[in-house]
Amino acid sequence: GTVKKIAVLPGDGIGPEIMEEALKVLRKVEDQFGHSFQFTFAMAGGGAVDRVGNPLPEETLSLCQQSDAVLLAAVGGPKWDNNPPELRPEQALLGLRKSLKLFANLRPAVLFEGLENASTLKQEVVKGVDLLVVRELTGGIYFGEKKREQLEDGEQATDTLVYHEREVERIVRRAFEIARGRRKMLTSVDKANILESSRLWRSVVNRVALDYPDVQVEHVLVDNCAMQLIRRPADFDVIVTENMFGDILSDETAMLTGSIGLLPSASLGEGTTGLYEPVHGSAPDIAGQGVANPAAMILSAAMMLRHSFGYEEAATAVEKAVRKVLADGHRTADLAGPGELAVGTEEFGDLVVEAM
Amino acid sequence: GTVKKIAVLPGDGIGPEIMEEALKVLRKVEDQFGHSFQFTFAMAGGGAVDRVGNPLPEETLSLCQQSDAVLLAAVGGPKWDNNPPELRPEQALLGLRKSLKLFANLRPAVLFEGLENASTLKQEVVKGVDLLVVRELTGGIYFGEKKREQLEDGEQATDTLVYHEREVERIVRRAFEIARGRRKMLTSVDKANILESSRLWRSVVNRVALDYPDVQVEHVLVDNCAMQLIRRPADFDVIVTENMFGDILSDETAMLTGSIGLLPSASLGEGTTGLYEPVHGSAPDIAGQGVANPAAMILSAAMMLRHSFGYEEAATAVEKAVRKVLADGHRTADLAGPGELAVGTEEFGDLVVEAM
Ligand SMILES: CC(C)[C@H](C(=O)O)[C@@H](O)C(=O)O
Ligand SMILES: CC(C)[C@H](C(=O)O)[C@@H](O)C(=O)O
Repeated sequence: GTVKKIAVLPGDGIGPEIMEEALKVLRKVEDQFGHSFQFTFAMAGGGAVDRVGNPLPEETLSLCQQSDAVLLAAVGGPKWDNNPPELRPEQALLGLRKSLKLFANLRPAVLFEGLENASTLKQEVVKGVDLLVVRELTGGIYFGEKKREQLEDGEQATDTLVYHEREVERIVRRAFEIARGRRKMLTSVDKANILESSRLWRSVVNRVALDYPDVQVEHVLVDNCAMQLIRRPADFDVIVTENMFGDILSDETAMLTGSIGLLPSASLGEGTTGLYEPVHGSAPDIAGQGVANPAAMILSAAMMLRHSFGYEEAATAVEKAVRKVLADGHRTADLAGPGELAVGTEEFGDLVVEAM
Repeated sequence: GTVKKIAVLPGDGIGPEIMEEALKVLRKVEDQFGHSFQFTFAMAGGGAVDRVGNPLPEETLSLCQQSDAVLLAAVGGPKWDNNPPELRPEQALLGLRKSLKLFANLRPAVLFEGLENASTLKQEVVKGVDLLVVRELTGGIYFGEKKREQLEDGEQATDTLVYHEREVERIVRRAFEIARGRRKMLTSVDKANILESSRLWRSVVNRVALDYPDVQVEHVLVDNCAMQLIRRPADFDVIVTENMFGDILSDETAMLTGSIGLLPSASLGEGTTGLYEPVHGSAPDIAGQGVANPAAMILSAAMMLRHSFGYEEAATAVEKAVRKVLADGHRTADLAGPGELAVGTEEFGDLVVEAM
């Protein structure tokens, strides 16, 4: 078979540790399913700022552009929090999203067996939660014109939220396609009572909906959605929304099941290239201690197997293995209850490999 | 004493029913504390669109401008959802906020005795929740330039988020003052890693903070805040943020305690004029049935007594009475458990008057 080229960006904080476990699992996938991967490491984020003064060095970007997929662990940390915008670790993310044209961010939130009680929400409320936020990732206020001006009577700052109907249509179509392969319910989130961009968004959703008569669509205002996610999270299937609303709602969603350490994400473009990263951050406070939870990173690798390579069987095998390890009661420190014995990062990775 | 002039806007849906109960309580306040109120009714919202083709008729606006305070019950309903923007009920709200310069929206969320179990969050998580969202209400993307253009390759829509440092400073100062009268903790929410307006916001907060050394300040990114509200809501005291983030987070907050039917809000300007309204909507599905919960409207009236009139004693008396009725186990339909006997709108109002 062909060799898949994977750009590996371990990044900052716990990044390198959890990445190691994901690679271990991918090596097991090579053995077990006869696939082959070529891993190339590169720097990104705060470490890259420190070493070469650029969160997304030219070599890293071109490596990613030439790869079949990108695995990114985590970037950022307090050390760089007061840097000027262009020297902040998250520029690596923003730059990759924009250059690789990764307009579709997929963030699944599911309740894992054995972790029904990890949430701050009541068990009966989170029971059955299985939703997916599809967030537009390369447009909107993230990438619109910005300015800061000194006026006569003080400073003024401006950000611009722009959407072209083409940008809306491609993310909305992607969401409809995904909903079709799931429970066939799509919630489109906007603020159409205030924003012109939301009114355009809503009209595109209504137009595209005609091509998907089998999918049930509802429009929900963003403020109401923030409420309903807490009130009845299990009722949602696929949620599609613009960049900033998606940023907020996908993080809210990530907290619903109480196990953010388990949540992967995929950022996809038109082709099969994709960037895969955990939802959680770089957790500098526990970096280097071997206690970080590598599950979200491993599950991100599984999403890569599915979405970029079409290795469905291998993807499912990895996901099942992670679920089994959790269902068997193994817990990293972030999930262990008081008095429970926690497994380390490496041990968790080994258990997943064993379970495969 | 002076007669306080109150503009009364019952609005749409359950608005008129719950307003009736708030007025009943205010009449009791007149008797009991020797204050006097002059109520003048006016139309606003969908009803006003139907009758005069304007959600905020000129007479209504000028009445409000000449009043000491405005009580508004609720506007909106599916009937007007597809109207063009200028004929939508919420224009009444936006118009009033802007014309009366009500830049500070206060939304308290507290856990009420007897309702510890109403939330979808676990009891131990919502225990002690007592937070206040202070939302900027007359600036930002709500009021910036909007446009929709037909380009050669399709439509494009633009919204503009603008903040002047003066606008930021006045809301931030208000929040610091309020925090000083509470637990002295202020969480400022922004998206400073992406938005220029947030960077201005953050710098103003840091500058104003020097005048309030007794208040502990933290900056939290909006996506992270959406998470933390679910993870540890009781840790928050005062949250201050810009208009759109405040819209989303205050609704999320309203859902935390599970009793949105109990939550009041105040919108204040520089002087003592204010607009007081429940956080919940017009609930057209139960309108006219006498089952709506009037508590949030009554508590909004209490906020008016405090913030616009300085009638602290009366305000506290009303709040205590509502709490007592709830603690005694009386429940309107929205809060009644299965098999529990619910009290109606009018009966709830009577119980509050009795409890005073
Ligand atoms: C780090 C930040 C720029 C980023 C975003 O806002 O998109 C992050 O919050 C995310 O959701 O991936
Ligand atoms: C009705 C709508 C315009 C309004 C807003 O977005 O401000 C509402 O959601 C609110 O929070 O008062």
